[in-house]
Amino acid sequence: MAMPCVGIVMGSDSDWPLVQKAADTLKAFGVAYEVRVMSAHRTPDVACEYAAAAARRGLKVIIAAAGLAAHLGGVLAAHTVLPVIGIPMPGGPLNGQDALLATVQMPSGIPVATVGIGNATNAALLAVQILGTADEVLRAKFLDHKAALRQKVIEADAKLNASLE
Amino acid sequence: MAMPCVGIVMGSDSDWPLVQKAADTLKAFGVAYEVRVMSAHRTPDVACEYAAAAARRGLKVIIAAAGLAAHLGGVLAAHTVLPVIGIPMPGGPLNGQDALLATVQMPSGIPVATVGIGNATNAALLAVQILGTADEVLRAKFLDHKAALRQKVIEADAKLNASLE
Amino acid sequence: MAMPCVGIVMGSDSDWPLVQKAADTLKAFGVAYEVRVMSAHRTPDVACEYAAAAARRGLKVIIAAAGLAAHLGGVLAAHTVLPVIGIPMPGGPLNGQDALLATVQMPSGIPVATVGIGNATNAALLAVQILGTADEVLRAKFLDHKAALRQKVIEADAKLNASLE
Amino acid sequence: MAMPCVGIVMGSDSDWPLVQKAADTLKAFGVAYEVRVMSAHRTPDVACEYAAAAARRGLKVIIAAAGLAAHLGGVLAAHTVLPVIGIPMPGGPLNGQDALLATVQMPSGIPVATVGIGNATNAALLAVQILGTADEVLRAKFLDHKAALRQKVIEADAKLNASLE
Amino acid sequence: MAMPCVGIVMGSDSDWPLVQKAADTLKAFGVAYEVRVMSAHRTPDVACEYAAAAARRGLKVIIAAAGLAAHLGGVLAAHTVLPVIGIPMPGGPLNGQDALLATVQMPSGIPVATVGIGNATNAALLAVQILGTADEVLRAKFLDHKAALRQKVIEADAKLNASLE
Amino acid sequence: MAMPCVGIVMGSDSDWPLVQKAADTLKAFGVAYEVRVMSAHRTPDVACEYAAAAARRGLKVIIAAAGLAAHLGGVLAAHTVLPVIGIPMPGGPLNGQDALLATVQMPSGIPVATVGIGNATNAALLAVQILGTADEVLRAKFLDHKAALRQKVIEADAKLNASLE
Amino acid sequence: MAMPCVGIVMGSDSDWPLVQKAADTLKAFGVAYEVRVMSAHRTPDVACEYAAAAARRGLKVIIAAAGLAAHLGGVLAAHTVLPVIGIPMPGGPLNGQDALLATVQMPSGIPVATVGIGNATNAALLAVQILGTADEVLRAKFLDHKAALRQKVIEADAKLNASLE
Amino acid sequence: MAMPCVGIVMGSDSDWPLVQKAADTLKAFGVAYEVRVMSAHRTPDVACEYAAAAARRGLKVIIAAAGLAAHLGGVLAAHTVLPVIGIPMPGGPLNGQDALLATVQMPSGIPVATVGIGNATNAALLAVQILGTADEVLRAKFLDHKAALRQKVIEADAKLNASLE
Repeated sequence: MAMPCVGIVMGSDSDWPLVQKAADTLKAFGVAYEVRVMSAHRTPDVACEYAAAAARRGLKVIIAAAGLAAHLGGVLAAHTVLPVIGIPMPGGPLNGQDALLATVQMPSGIPVATVGIGNATNAALLAVQILGTADEVLRAKFLDHKAALRQKVIEADAKLNASLE
Repeated sequence: MAMPCVGIVMGSDSDWPLVQKAADTLKAFGVAYEVRVMSAHRTPDVACEYAAAAARRGLKVIIAAAGLAAHLGGVLAAHTVLPVIGIPMPGGPLNGQDALLATVQMPSGIPVATVGIGNATNAALLAVQILGTADEVLRAKFLDHKAALRQKVIEADAKLNASLE
Repeated sequence: MAMPCVGIVMGSDSDWPLVQKAADTLKAFGVAYEVRVMSAHRTPDVACEYAAAAARRGLKVIIAAAGLAAHLGGVLAAHTVLPVIGIPMPGGPLNGQDALLATVQMPSGIPVATVGIGNATNAALLAVQILGTADEVLRAKFLDHKAALRQKVIEADAKLNASLE
Repeated sequence: MAMPCVGIVMGSDSDWPLVQKAADTLKAFGVAYEVRVMSAHRTPDVACEYAAAAARRGLKVIIAAAGLAAHLGGVLAAHTVLPVIGIPMPGGPLNGQDALLATVQMPSGIPVATVGIGNATNAALLAVQILGTADEVLRAKFLDHKAALRQKVIEADAKLNASLE
Repeated sequence: MAMPCVGIVMGSDSDWPLVQKAADTLKAFGVAYEVRVMSAHRTPDVACEYAAAAARRGLKVIIAAAGLAAHLGGVLAAHTVLPVIGIPMPGGPLNGQDALLATVQMPSGIPVATVGIGNATNAALLAVQILGTADEVLRAKFLDHKAALRQKVIEADAKLNASLE
Repeated sequence: MAMPCVGIVMGSDSDWPLVQKAADTLKAFGVAYEVRVMSAHRTPDVACEYAAAAARRGLKVIIAAAGLAAHLGGVLAAHTVLPVIGIPMPGGPLNGQDALLATVQMPSGIPVATVGIGNATNAALLAVQILGTADEVLRAKFLDHKAALRQKVIEADAKLNASLE
Repeated sequence: MAMPCVGIVMGSDSDWPLVQKAADTLKAFGVAYEVRVMSAHRTPDVACEYAAAAARRGLKVIIAAAGLAAHLGGVLAAHTVLPVIGIPMPGGPLNGQDALLATVQMPSGIPVATVGIGNATNAALLAVQILGTADEVLRAKFLDHKAALRQKVIEADAKLNASLE
Repeated sequence: MAMPCVGIVMGSDSDWPLVQKAADTLKAFGVAYEVRVMSAHRTPDVACEYAAAAARRGLKVIIAAAGLAAHLGGVLAAHTVLPVIGIPMPGGPLNGQDALLATVQMPSGIPVATVGIGNATNAALLAVQILGTADEVLRAKFLDHKAALRQKVIEADAKLNASLE
């Protein structure tokens, strides 16, 4: 695989089944990525160093998935100039409401670009859109993605109506 | 002003006092922007056409501020390949909790990069980070921004401690 | 089937099992309807055109079912003069709380008539009541519906009391 | 004034300052209405009789505004075949969150068409849309209303941009 | 069974499995009760007449169980001078949060004594306490109930500690 | 004043302005009461002894007003056989949502009869209804109260309509 | 086992499966503890006496686990000078949101150190940290605990990456 | 002042007016403290180093006050073995509900002892209780504090009753 330009980071390997959708989406777009497990609270030094080195290593975007009092996105954002996309993970007794607020309500000065609870696919698509601001090829692929989404809905419409006749 | 590369869109001109912070922040970074009032519900055609033409017109990022059942970010995202940053606006009887969920909980396929409720400054900073993925000068300015934030906290710490002696 | 006067629209065919109750209810009242899958975000043009043409095509009411950041009702309402009934769909990590707020909290000027989360039956009944404002036969059928509801409760009361003796 | 075809009902005269917007909107559309104060809990017989007689008296739509554990819409709906539009009123320690749920979450069988918290204007507009399903003149007026909304946004956009130059 | 002094009312016979605990508790205290299924929305006249006649028929307390936009307790309270105990039923997409607010947030003037979501046992115990304000025998039984609760906790403590040795 | 039969207890004297409505209501019904400030956390022994002695002292009902993590109602209920009415007090950053849940969600075995947030009037009215289960005179007064509520609404209706002519 | 210095208290033995993690964690640190079932509402005297005697008996920290309107932590804190750690238990229709607020929102003067919903492990770790303020050996063990946590994340990272190659 | 054993840390000097109560409380107990402004996001290195050095510098407890997506407590806890007390700060559009969840819902392994929203006094009292586990003098002072709280409630009770005579 080419030098990664997206870093997919998650707080625990138990997040992988859901986060994998982000990796699959990037792969489908031909965007090189790396996958890392690191924790804002259990390996804070790893997280800080990862974020601090990210731009220098050639990463362009970081995707951070964490649940509960989800600090991972914010901690990474504190140590990098790269855009950080936060995925609030579902699960736990509040099923991601805590993670959503802990990710999106960043104080003024350090944003985390937050997608829907558990929406790893959208995190990857947002990364593609960001990279697409300087990459015509990716942008064209995103148009294809939108066309495919469109086609799928149109087919579902046709199929449902066929089944109703 | 140069050809704008960020479009700041709001659902109502009553949002301007808060949204202005996004404009001020972009200005401080030297990022050319345009400001538009358009509504997903009252001028849907304007919004659709704006989003559909945005990439062609040279915009790189769209910032969309809307309150209540905030559909503006999602509607714009539906018509463009550009990254759309959503600012859920405070106000109304639920003070932005509705706007947050209506902005961030986008279905799989069409992301909106959501920042904190009313956090127009962070929306602009996120736009700068996105543009910075392909612009070393902006990235350096973002480092300066972080250094300035840091300095301000350190000075506040010193000042508070001085006042306590 | 006669020319439809109610359009039942859903954002995804996965909504059908629940939305089907709306269709069944309309059928029971003899109200002609059509069923469509279309998305505010994936097929925005289809949705806009559908709503824009709805009145001309003879539709009287549109029922829109969508989940998460449910924009479908609002987007359709933006393009039609017909009353739009929104069904906030359950599901997702917040189980429809997001869809409820994204549907009901429409800004002033463009209403969406919202029913309870996942309550497709009530959406159809509301459509019947709306059509009944100009249709004595439907109104009479609605009275029958209320009588049947009443009877069912009275029988449940009798049956429970019989079982307790 | 002509025989009213919309009944605007509120649980307390303290709701009038907000509910008045519904009356003003109906007046602007030339829709005859009546205004009543009655309570699901304090004058339940008045409410029941009002709803039971409404269709016979020529009303076509009832608008019900109530706060807190807002039962008024549901109680009226229980006694009529007419469509009932519920306005959950803001105020109280939960600022209308209670009224929203108490209005919209009706059990299967008896819908209340719910608009946003405190959104009396939208309640009236929905009533106009409902009446418009059988009234071409009203429908044309609603198109004018949408055109006016549209114009206002376009002017706000122009004015804001003029002020920024 | 003696003339009932507690009326247990539920909005649907599907509530019975949970509401049965109220009946069982009253039976254990030797309090005569009756069980009824009636609905604020589907059999409003039955509910109104039931409440209006309750005191005359010798009932002393009414227990009302309802879910979603739970209006039953409020509607019964509107038609009686007897204390009405409301059980907000769990279930539905919000699992009783709607029923809790729709039951407890009654406007000033007409209280509903609300117990925890789905807590039918506590509703019955509260009825016993109310009856006990004028019945020394019941009061003594309630003391026994508290002693039994106490004993159960003490035994659970002993048993857990025994298991840990 | 006669031997009190209702004890109005509040966690802090700062609750008095709101709780006073309970006292005023009881006074209007001629129900003797006493007012006490005591805290589940700051004077737990006073609270326990008060509740334990309440029945012996002739009290019939206890009203407990507390805010935040409102434990007062539950602690009093733990030490008495009397019905305890809880008023969740508004105020604090969550404006009584915490107090509502901390009051109403009592575990099985020990109920607290909960009224709406800050609804001291309803707490007193519920006490009157409870006492009225064994007091025909109070019951008659409650009927008068309901008639007065009714009259007030009818007059408000007339007055509003007069003002609109 | 040595004289216990941590008391683990729970409101019901049904809490044990989750609370056991606190016991296991303390055992792993070699901290002596005792386990008790007692209830703020069902055995209030046991709870008061336990807390009042706790310091004299040599306990240093109390951990209190309770659900719903969780008063146990607050009641214990009212009767002791020892730090009380509250575990809001999940379960019930609100899945611990009630317990969280009823535990953490203590009035000024009597704190309860609250950990996450159902997070018995963190309650024990906090007890270890508290004891570690005066115990170098425990503090060293806590460093080992953190190193082990760190190692586990690093291994998970390596293992996931190995599986992806 | 003596070598501090409590570090009071806040994310912004705008928190000081509320946090000052923690300082005042510690001063009243004669506990030496230091006050620092540092941010998990704006001065992450300062925060990490502060926490990492805290134990070595003789601190025993850290109090961390932060609002919105409050990460400060968690970030400090990640770098120290000392107990960290989190104060979720009120303010912002959600008035501290975000800060509460972002502070209390820490993942297993790294606790933050959370007090009520904005309850700086309780944070300091908890620190005193923690220090008191190894300091008889502080424990005696805490008993005095509880006696004073008790006395204040008793006086408020007497004063209110005097005013009512």
